[in-house]
Amino acid sequence: MRFIAFTNDHGQPALGARIGDELVDLTALGLPASLDELLRQGEAGMQAARDAIASATTRSPIAGLQYLPPVLNPAKAFAIGLNYIDHAAENNFDPPKHPVVFQRYVSSWVGHESPLQRPKVSTQFDYEAELVAVIGKGGRYIPKEEALDHVAGYSLFNDGSIRDYQLRTNQWTLGKNFDNSGSFGPEFVTADEVPAGASGLQLTCRLNGRVLQDANTRDMIFDVATLVSACSEAMALQPGDIIITGTPSGVGLARKPQVWMKPGDVCEVEIEGLGVLRNAIVDEA
Amino acid sequence: MRFIAFTNDHGQPALGARIGDELVDLTALGLPASLDELLRQGEAGMQAARDAIASATTRSPIAGLQYLPPVLNPAKAFAIGLNYIDHAAENNFDPPKHPVVFQRYVSSWVGHESPLQRPKVSTQFDYEAELVAVIGKGGRYIPKEEALDHVAGYSLFNDGSIRDYQLRTNQWTLGKNFDNSGSFGPEFVTADEVPAGASGLQLTCRLNGRVLQDANTRDMIFDVATLVSACSEAMALQPGDIIITGTPSGVGLARKPQVWMKPGDVCEVEIEGLGVLRNAIVDEA
Repeated sequence: MRFIAFTNDHGQPALGARIGDELVDLTALGLPASLDELLRQGEAGMQAARDAIASATTRSPIAGLQYLPPVLNPAKAFAIGLNYIDHAAENNFDPPKHPVVFQRYVSSWVGHESPLQRPKVSTQFDYEAELVAVIGKGGRYIPKEEALDHVAGYSLFNDGSIRDYQLRTNQWTLGKNFDNSGSFGPEFVTADEVPAGASGLQLTCRLNGRVLQDANTRDMIFDVATLVSACSEAMALQPGDIIITGTPSGVGLARKPQVWMKPGDVCEVEIEGLGVLRNAIVDEA
Repeated sequence: MRFIAFTNDHGQPALGARIGDELVDLTALGLPASLDELLRQGEAGMQAARDAIASATTRSPIAGLQYLPPVLNPAKAFAIGLNYIDHAAENNFDPPKHPVVFQRYVSSWVGHESPLQRPKVSTQFDYEAELVAVIGKGGRYIPKEEALDHVAGYSLFNDGSIRDYQLRTNQWTLGKNFDNSGSFGPEFVTADEVPAGASGLQLTCRLNGRVLQDANTRDMIFDVATLVSACSEAMALQPGDIIITGTPSGVGLARKPQVWMKPGDVCEVEIEGLGVLRNAIVDEA
């Protein structure tokens, strides 16, 4: 299944299932208004969604939909640094021996087709194409062999980064969390729709149509199962938690000359089978 | 005012005001069940609390109270690293030129008198005594000169850290966020009860009565106003957000021999005028 979070005609958050170019409004059929809540219902929630899709008598076109980020309020949003060897190398970091984890706050991202904001305090606004894994079933000390059972599905992320702020101290939190500097979407795709661990998928970033990142998710240093297991060693994972799995080489910081996103640009992240996440860049008002 | 979050006789979260050894149950008087919610009401919430305290006809003893962390669900919980020169030096870090910021998740801390859990995967369980500033009024790009107007008050934190996990990559998130490895409390003290910026207060950590950290909040490299301003440069702050302001020298990691918290120990963090935060250490079940 493919879920889209959107703003409905009453200005309220709602959850829909996409069938081709059409949407079944699940919330209008009595299901939760967010994927977060549906995931907390576990397998019963997913079954209710399947039933609602099968029995729905109306569909609306997805054209013109106002997208929201697929997960609205995860308790934890882990972002993984340096998870592709070429990217670690281009930034002069050694490949990590363990997953490198930082936090991305909900306030730092927007949905598909909403503008990314370049803040007024910096011009070093960089893109990072990434795969997102969404936790469906919580747990602590999850063995790697069972970890994919805890992943409900996948999406895409543009881990937009304000590089001067990110790198001016040894912890990246501030530069990775400027308001509306990243994006998440367009939709949430259940795990059964892609290969195990979403491995082997081509991952691309284009700025104004120019391909700047082009890699394959199989080249992650730590695959999705390893990341789930590693995070759960410290913390009990909960349904709706997300893991933003890191970016491959080709970021603007490492290019000669460097490439920064600026107002008027359009940035697209694409992952094979998961869709295209598209955002225009604007200056902060 | 001094607020205590606690579990009431019905097993529900509630908010009280402490007067000496007694508590006025504000929630029973119709006020919100959490400080988070009260802070979102702004000055009106604080005035409602003052009125309720003045007109309350019943008080109960605080003895035997089951404490909760003062803020239950902050959108952002910033923790500051290396914010005292002596502590940066003891860990062989250069004093930072900008605040070093990482995230602490709600799941990583308990309240006053609840046990701190040493996880089964590590014995390197360290203490860190810290001052917490709680945001009352939100805002973005807050100038340093106005920053203290955005701070509603203060509390204490034991930034319990699993050192081997913290230091095995360059981002500290996992080792700083083991479930129930830190503590927050005992109470929330409004800013008017302490010196401006909570500066000039003695800060102490005792393990089984032995003083292991002893410093003064005036020795922070970045004071509370600077931290509020710096964080708000990246993100709009919201009422209930917290800033855990960093620890002075004397941590277990840097001692010879090293000192780790273990089951049966009792760790106390004390800040002059703000109280004592006390937790026993247990092994994870």
